[in-house]
Amino acid sequence: MTSELPVPDAEFTNWAITELAQEKTDLLESSLQGVHPSIVGKLIESLHPDQRSDLLALLPEQAVGAALHHVSAELRNQLLNKISAPRLTQIAEYLQPNELASTLDALPDSISDSVVSSLDAENLARVNAVLEYEEGTAGRIMTTDALSIKPDITLRVVSKWLRKKDALPPYTSSLVVTDEHGVYLGKLPMSAVVTGDLDALVESVMLVSNETIAVSASEHDVAQLFEQRHLVAAAVVDDEQRVVGRITVERAMDILQREADHQLLNSRGLSDEADLFAPIVPSALQRGVWLGINLATVFLAAWVIGQFQVALDEIVALAVLMPIVASMGGIAGSQTLTLTIRGLALDQIVRSNVRWLTTKELGVGALNGIAWAVVVALVTYLWFKNPGLSLIIATAMMINLVVAAASGVIVPLVLKRLGFDPALSGAVVLTTVTDIVGFLSFLGLASLFLL
Amino acid sequence: MTSELPVPDAEFTNWAITELAQEKTDLLESSLQGVHPSIVGKLIESLHPDQRSDLLALLPEQAVGAALHHVSAELRNQLLNKISAPRLTQIAEYLQPNELASTLDALPDSISDSVVSSLDAENLARVNAVLEYEEGTAGRIMTTDALSIKPDITLRVVSKWLRKKDALPPYTSSLVVTDEHGVYLGKLPMSAVVTGDLDALVESVMLVSNETIAVSASEHDVAQLFEQRHLVAAAVVDDEQRVVGRITVERAMDILQREADHQLLNSRGLSDEADLFAPIVPSALQRGVWLGINLATVFLAAWVIGQFQVALDEIVALAVLMPIVASMGGIAGSQTLTLTIRGLALDQIVRSNVRWLTTKELGVGALNGIAWAVVVALVTYLWFKNPGLSLIIATAMMINLVVAAASGVIVPLVLKRLGFDPALSGAVVLTTVTDIVGFLSFLGLASLFLL
Repeated sequence: MTSELPVPDAEFTNWAITELAQEKTDLLESSLQGVHPSIVGKLIESLHPDQRSDLLALLPEQAVGAALHHVSAELRNQLLNKISAPRLTQIAEYLQPNELASTLDALPDSISDSVVSSLDAENLARVNAVLEYEEGTAGRIMTTDALSIKPDITLRVVSKWLRKKDALPPYTSSLVVTDEHGVYLGKLPMSAVVTGDLDALVESVMLVSNETIAVSASEHDVAQLFEQRHLVAAAVVDDEQRVVGRITVERAMDILQREADHQLLNSRGLSDEADLFAPIVPSALQRGVWLGINLATVFLAAWVIGQFQVALDEIVALAVLMPIVASMGGIAGSQTLTLTIRGLALDQIVRSNVRWLTTKELGVGALNGIAWAVVVALVTYLWFKNPGLSLIIATAMMINLVVAAASGVIVPLVLKRLGFDPALSGAVVLTTVTDIVGFLSFLGLASLFLL
Repeated sequence: MTSELPVPDAEFTNWAITELAQEKTDLLESSLQGVHPSIVGKLIESLHPDQRSDLLALLPEQAVGAALHHVSAELRNQLLNKISAPRLTQIAEYLQPNELASTLDALPDSISDSVVSSLDAENLARVNAVLEYEEGTAGRIMTTDALSIKPDITLRVVSKWLRKKDALPPYTSSLVVTDEHGVYLGKLPMSAVVTGDLDALVESVMLVSNETIAVSASEHDVAQLFEQRHLVAAAVVDDEQRVVGRITVERAMDILQREADHQLLNSRGLSDEADLFAPIVPSALQRGVWLGINLATVFLAAWVIGQFQVALDEIVALAVLMPIVASMGGIAGSQTLTLTIRGLALDQIVRSNVRWLTTKELGVGALNGIAWAVVVALVTYLWFKNPGLSLIIATAMMINLVVAAASGVIVPLVLKRLGFDPALSGAVVLTTVTDIVGFLSFLGLASLFLL
């Protein structure tokens, strides 16, 4: 009964995949009842596309929504579109208004109309309220189950009112205090409700914090606030400061997870919702675009090399050594780039420290440039016994490492200024610069001094 | 009073840096009082190393611990070592036992001894209890402020007991129910405390979940559980299932953040606690190691190229075009690698789907190999008017893209089996493979058929 929390289990996934493949679903169906929705979601993502609907069919209606909540949005939309309208209607009954709103968005009109027509008036009004807000804003991710109280009642009244309820909404760490127009005044932590003096007025013990979220705030900003302040829940207010809903840590953590994924995948030209187990052709198309962009940049580098065919024809060692200068520049530059992008994301880089940061990175680039230039010069001399070549590769490497450091700071700052996300496009731009400068400096110096 | 939560503000950081630089600290000192510790922590990280102690000196003792909680562990240790023993003793009074334990670890013995000697008996016992557990385990990150109750009392008794307290520990979303030996029996959500029937017994309304954490569980596993189940707090138990403490979402989110940072930085050879604004020499040394590893792998690739000096001497176009094959392999491979590492981290990749995954990635590699080989062959023909060369670069590219896809799956699986973290070393191994296969296939085929 009181065993430790199991570590999310690859064993269960492995077993379930085998059972599904052998169409032995009885035991699986009953096992799924006792498993946390997050594990069911993970299992769905791990399945072959053909098996996913089979698994969904094994879940009871009330569990489908929670499980789908734990898969990527694209896959969720795919799967929802394969469920019949009558079953969707049953599933819809167990969804929060905001979940239902995004589910309806994902369905073809004919089916979403039939689901909507089955909703009762209250649920319909709630869903329409959510649909009023733009996607990606606090309004779309809030729930409408905030408990609010008036400031001029005693804790005794609050306690009695709560005692009449069957349960509180999840993550109710505090009650929202509002005036007669629903305007936010403060919050009353549950801690104060249970420990405070029963005769005290709410307004005398409530916290007058400014911890509310504008209904138009972006999902990203909401998630950042939860992460930095470790909030459990926060009230959402409209332009007149009226409380319209609340957002919980659950939703905020989902957004943080999705954003981390987004950056990881997009920086490699993979789709936001890249699915490891997607079919071959869509996967190939998705990734092909990025390969095409890379092909263009590498042809540019090849064109630069092409300008030095005379030198390459004369001294074959240049062809052997030239990848070294370009590669070291790419690595050094990507180190600076990674730190700069992270600093920008954390708001650590501001006007008043950019200059110092650039100076510092140039210093780091120069130091490493000198150190590794000596090593490269030595190895080159031992290999080709050509002191001029050694001197030239060392000089080219110093140039490229300093350029790489400067680019590592400047490229993301410029991209950001231009409105691009440096985390997505920074690496391509940077390595194009370090490749070209690497080939140009090495082959250019060689053409000048060795021919 | 009820304004929206401000987005963590680059403006404040910018202003504070300027104020500190001009030594106008009066306004800054008073502004720091009203600012959230996370923003103070961010400000400390954004400062020039020389200014950081100046800022700490402006903070009242009770705010230092919270602010330092929001900077990286390495920087925290550096800063603690610059604070005088008497001030440290004052700061220590406001720390949780686990925070104090890690603070003491960071200090030289002479100073930590003097801080310890100033602790009262109760705090000393608490710190020693925490220090008993290994670093990186649940025992080290738990707090000892769990509220526990017995199962055979009524909610009325629970309510009266709570009413005698001044406040509850932060993130008390439920009370822990234990038997007379302190063994975990279940949890009583605050929701049940305030809504339940006052005459009901705790044991009749408590949740008998298995949501406890072993005191020896790793930080990583703890954080994963919080992320997947969206927990607010969980009880920590020893081998006999006795409750020894609890872990809150606050600590779990810190670990998640730190781990994400760790992966991002380590995959570029940057230190775990890389500090954008660290001095030049330590930064250069830290990054130099990674550059050295890269230099070794790129010399290996250069050695491969060196085996084909005859071909390169004969046909200079080979030198111009060879980076294309290597680069495209690197990009395609890193796409597969990224997805595989992510799949491993999410436990999506298990024995029963590895074969299908490999087949699928090989298919994607082959499709993109064919598509881009045609484009490369065409451009090469237009450039060099050499059909043999076009055919060879197209073939080499197909080979390298299929090898890249296979390596993208196999390299991380093998690294994991060998006990390495694929997220850290995967990219180096992969690009070494795709560089060598790229140069070898292109130059090798050219040597065979064009000479």
